[in-house]
Amino acid sequence: MLETMEIESSKRIELLDITSQVNAVIQKSGISEGICLLHVPHTTAGITINENADPDVSHDILEMTGRLIPRDENYAHLEGNSDSHIKSSLFGTTIDLIINNGKLLLGRWQCLYFCEFDGPRSRSLYIKIISG
Amino acid sequence: MLETMEIESSKRIELLDITSQVNAVIQKSGISEGICLLHVPHTTAGITINENADPDVSHDILEMTGRLIPRDENYAHLEGNSDSHIKSSLFGTTIDLIINNGKLLLGRWQCLYFCEFDGPRSRSLYIKIISG
Amino acid sequence: MLETMEIESSKRIELLDITSQVNAVIQKSGISEGICLLHVPHTTAGITINENADPDVSHDILEMTGRLIPRDENYAHLEGNSDSHIKSSLFGTTIDLIINNGKLLLGRWQCLYFCEFDGPRSRSLYIKIISG
Repeated sequence: MLETMEIESSKRIELLDITSQVNAVIQKSGISEGICLLHVPHTTAGITINENADPDVSHDILEMTGRLIPRDENYAHLEGNSDSHIKSSLFGTTIDLIINNGKLLLGRWQCLYFCEFDGPRSRSLYIKIISG
Repeated sequence: MLETMEIESSKRIELLDITSQVNAVIQKSGISEGICLLHVPHTTAGITINENADPDVSHDILEMTGRLIPRDENYAHLEGNSDSHIKSSLFGTTIDLIINNGKLLLGRWQCLYFCEFDGPRSRSLYIKIISG
Repeated sequence: MLETMEIESSKRIELLDITSQVNAVIQKSGISEGICLLHVPHTTAGITINENADPDVSHDILEMTGRLIPRDENYAHLEGNSDSHIKSSLFGTTIDLIINNGKLLLGRWQCLYFCEFDGPRSRSLYIKIISG
């Protein structure tokens, strides 16, 4: 099963918790055990897993990576978003997760984040679900 | 097949070679060709592949990433482990490997490392094995 | 289906667009829907997805990561390529992609890059294709 999910970001840089939306797609598929491959089809966005209990964690992730990879540097690419492309490659644009009991198998403190690095924009996420 | 492996770390930050333990789980499954999805269900740990021949390589990986993402910075999160959360997202918490001839297909110099970024702790690793 | 692809790099550090070569392997497999697991069996190389329309993007990715992780630092590993090992773990050596209509499902601006961090060398890429 292959599905496309739509995501709307509202800031230039933010982490959006998409765990429940992805779980809804898995539930619709009716598959209870298997794997779920997620692919962000953009070059200035990414996907990651981290804590969502304390919003300060995502704040620190974005703040520190923004300090390491600043927006305004002596970049060659003239669109003003080289920082976003670099972050996309370091965070990654694909992730493969285990489906257990009809939903994503995640740790107690983990959630799935769509990483917006050059928003606000309308974004997509490809979701491939395989039973097994 | 879904299995949980237990890992004990002994330092705050270290790379633990778990290749043979994961291979033992694959052997137990009896599956000779397929894929093996590994998921670290923690937000201050990760998983990576690198060289294990010279221990200086893991030393340099941890030393340089610790210099880029220091423990003591002006972080918002008050638990003192924002560096661990950031590293978790940059190294990643999932990896998907090929099973060939009943074990992980790795390069000659590669081994699989569990990345402890906020130990010592008792950790888990989810292992999903799919034949194919 | 498991295949090994050969790659020749020509610089110490470069991103090589391997999208069409991987698509050729998928086409040969005859599989139109499924997943494609790519694994770089080296510890000083990696794999990533990013833009290939403007070559300045790959230039900026390599330039900025080279500034963050310089070749000449006070490293313990004596082979002079600790920077390459560190980048290998941060970019990653595996990626899992969706096969749709007999080829890789990628975004409009995305291509698949083999990341050479310690060339020029003869390199390999493992490709595992699963129908589903």
